[in-house]
Amino acid sequence: MMQRTRITFSTSGHGAMRDLTPEIREAVRASGIEAGVVHVFAVGSTAAVGTIEWEPGLAKDLPENLDRLIPPGRHYGHEQMWHDGNGHSHLQATLLGPSIAIPFERRELLLGQWQQVFHLECDVRPRQRTVIVTVMGE
Amino acid sequence: MMQRTRITFSTSGHGAMRDLTPEIREAVRASGIEAGVVHVFAVGSTAAVGTIEWEPGLAKDLPENLDRLIPPGRHYGHEQMWHDGNGHSHLQATLLGPSIAIPFERRELLLGQWQQVFHLECDVRPRQRTVIVTVMGE
Amino acid sequence: MMQRTRITFSTSGHGAMRDLTPEIREAVRASGIEAGVVHVFAVGSTAAVGTIEWEPGLAKDLPENLDRLIPPGRHYGHEQMWHDGNGHSHLQATLLGPSIAIPFERRELLLGQWQQVFHLECDVRPRQRTVIVTVMGE
Repeated sequence: MMQRTRITFSTSGHGAMRDLTPEIREAVRASGIEAGVVHVFAVGSTAAVGTIEWEPGLAKDLPENLDRLIPPGRHYGHEQMWHDGNGHSHLQATLLGPSIAIPFERRELLLGQWQQVFHLECDVRPRQRTVIVTVMGE
Repeated sequence: MMQRTRITFSTSGHGAMRDLTPEIREAVRASGIEAGVVHVFAVGSTAAVGTIEWEPGLAKDLPENLDRLIPPGRHYGHEQMWHDGNGHSHLQATLLGPSIAIPFERRELLLGQWQQVFHLECDVRPRQRTVIVTVMGE
Repeated sequence: MMQRTRITFSTSGHGAMRDLTPEIREAVRASGIEAGVVHVFAVGSTAAVGTIEWEPGLAKDLPENLDRLIPPGRHYGHEQMWHDGNGHSHLQATLLGPSIAIPFERRELLLGQWQQVFHLECDVRPRQRTVIVTVMGE
């Protein structure tokens, strides 16, 4: 069995974090599937998904540290081709990745108590975003 | 078809690596499923899973290099909120990620000869850990 | 339902990027499965898969920035064990990861317009590579 839903939202731009857990939890409960794996996919090449403890400190730390590891700048090959100032956005998104899957049982996500699913906007401007949620199981 | 098992173990703290491959291989063999994908998920926000060549050199290199990229320290926003000294643990775990899937056929994992599945403890103290293994296929 | 195909190719060595999207798209179309998730797995411990905007700038930026974060060198524990000069290759591959999944509908991948699936050779010499593609759905 498989059920699919989409989560759509707008972001405020680079470094914007969003907690997707409530909507993923709801997708699982509404699916009618008792146990399985829910796959979460960020559409686009300048956004990412992952898990983190959802609290204001880490919501600031994660984009800050990605900027430290892969800093904004005009020196990227991508910039020389496209001049849109978001070379670091692409590389940060690729490093974190757009794809994650979470197991569930009895229609409940098997996350840790302090583990939530986030979406990170890596692009340099506000964007409309789509996350595709696929509930698979039996 | 779907079969689920849990792997539970304790870790010695930050940087502890564990080879999960034997237990994942056994979960696949015991599932009765011939071919498919096995999903592996680290429960908690300060641990990660991935693949690596399982040998002592890399088991030391991986946590050392994560500490170089995201060093321990008291300067993280997470620290200012919670004072538990594990801001870097959270960020390292998020960067590596808690979710991986491996294909299998004839009940055998399709890993490379030198490719194993590891669990990495990123937290600063010994922990009890759970890894959820979901075998899916036909 | 599940269908599996393999993509095999040779690489020119460290930093070689390959666009896997056409072959993954064809695997989905040929599977006879209408909607689901396609899982993509890089066999071996010195290669990775992910998504990126496929253009020459980023195809250069990604391996360059991985080399900046995890530089080539003889100081890795892996090197002291094996003397094959590819400690950084292993760590880069582990950081990016070998496993990704992409949703599809009506036999079409639900990627962003500028989002493609790549394979990255991290090893220091040309290699024969296998990517395992598993189409799952209904």
